[in-house]
Amino acid sequence: MSTITSDIIDDIISQVIAESNLAECPTCAQNHVRPFSYDAANDLVSFGASRVGVVAPSCPPKYEMARWIDHTILKPDTTLEQIEKICEEAREHKFASVCINPTWVSTCYKLLRGSDVKVCTVIGFPLGATLPEVKATETRQVINQGAQEVDMVINIGALKSGDLALVEHDIRSVVRAAGRQTVKVILETCLLTDEEKVSACVIAKKAGANFVKTSTGFSSGGATVTDVALMRKIVGAAMGVKASGGVRSYDEACKMVEAGATRIGASASVAIVSNGSSEKNDY
Amino acid sequence: MSTITSDIIDDIISQVIAESNLAECPTCAQNHVRPFSYDAANDLVSFGASRVGVVAPSCPPKYEMARWIDHTILKPDTTLEQIEKICEEAREHKFASVCINPTWVSTCYKLLRGSDVKVCTVIGFPLGATLPEVKATETRQVINQGAQEVDMVINIGALKSGDLALVEHDIRSVVRAAGRQTVKVILETCLLTDEEKVSACVIAKKAGANFVKTSTGFSSGGATVTDVALMRKIVGAAMGVKASGGVRSYDEACKMVEAGATRIGASASVAIVSNGSSEKNDY
Repeated sequence: MSTITSDIIDDIISQVIAESNLAECPTCAQNHVRPFSYDAANDLVSFGASRVGVVAPSCPPKYEMARWIDHTILKPDTTLEQIEKICEEAREHKFASVCINPTWVSTCYKLLRGSDVKVCTVIGFPLGATLPEVKATETRQVINQGAQEVDMVINIGALKSGDLALVEHDIRSVVRAAGRQTVKVILETCLLTDEEKVSACVIAKKAGANFVKTSTGFSSGGATVTDVALMRKIVGAAMGVKASGGVRSYDEACKMVEAGATRIGASASVAIVSNGSSEKNDY
Repeated sequence: MSTITSDIIDDIISQVIAESNLAECPTCAQNHVRPFSYDAANDLVSFGASRVGVVAPSCPPKYEMARWIDHTILKPDTTLEQIEKICEEAREHKFASVCINPTWVSTCYKLLRGSDVKVCTVIGFPLGATLPEVKATETRQVINQGAQEVDMVINIGALKSGDLALVEHDIRSVVRAAGRQTVKVILETCLLTDEEKVSACVIAKKAGANFVKTSTGFSSGGATVTDVALMRKIVGAAMGVKASGGVRSYDEACKMVEAGATRIGASASVAIVSNGSSEKNDY
């Protein structure tokens, strides 16, 4: 790992420790800072607050959970009929977005016209092992076809081989190509060590991404509460955290939100906002 | 399915039946046609042959098998160290190619300079659910970096939704972008019905691809003898057939060759050409 990145990680960890101290302060009802914003706490202190209280993020009720969810279908054999169905469900339940493969972006854009449901798609998915120029082209193409959010996979092999410059260049290429649209950076946490997770979060933030996201749903594991909490601590309040992979019930979604997630990726979305859970795969 | 494509499939099936009849003829040592070439058999008949014998393709001995194998590592967390190792193994055993993700093409090109081992990479991999323009860009980029063979995944969802024009346009985009380099078309047979497999083979041939290939190694199943035989029958002798996914021993590789495969994709390649089998994953 480069010295610069090590220094950045040390800085971030210091901030996290500072935030953790703030979180231990149990009082000050007027000065709530939620969730995990070091800068906001600092502002309050500079305006004269002697103590700052932090409340843990709380889970929205079931009827409000839909707007936290990317309603997802990413299987390679997804048919037009299934795409039409999830767009209909997304309109009905008012999910944040439908998350589908690039080949379905223009179809979903048409199907969701006039609703608040966004079109979200995936870039370099699910391996993340293609070239930055290819990810940038894919981003431009899908945005031209109506995508408003793109979930890109990092170059995992480069991260594991210590080529952090390539990891950053790769993310930055997508961020630039996305312009004003939202970029989520998928870490594929199940394949990473804790140090690599921290490093990836720091780089995603530095490269100007909007979210970090746990998983593709195509590897050996999905979102865990521990990983979501770690990612939230590292990126601070300025970025979103998306928990995806294996979230199949309202209770599981709540645990992710309480750990710091601001978006959930799921295929069991209707079950999450309705009653009961689902055994459906998450992609 | 369009009438035109149905007609083409009917034609091909008639040819296959004709070939099967020929294959039942047990004589004529001088007029061997191997393997499965209807056109070649037809030529012999037009030159005066009254009977044409067909011999089944035979498995090469272990020491010759290497040149049939694409030595493969496609895991997203592959490191530089692993890439260096498979290039070294490929040089030593004289495999046909190393098959790696696009991010490693330029590295492999440098590592394999001066050898006969080709650089093979994957396009739209493993879901095949991105846009034709993206697959074409990816193809151009990897060829610029030294790739000599590209294994692209078809648009499975389009095939299943009956959008055969898109399936063809998608393959043709990659074939055009590849210029003189070899294009293999991955069907992901485990997700297809037999009719869809036939249809995909016919379209791949029509679009000018060089090979059809069974599997990505990332879905629910790999190569089977039945699928390889079906694909060989449909594409005839003019195209290659690559069996990939789950081939881990010399005996398994032989079965694929005897069924009509002219290339094997495997990560257990060293085990295949040495002694014993391997439990390694195939990607």
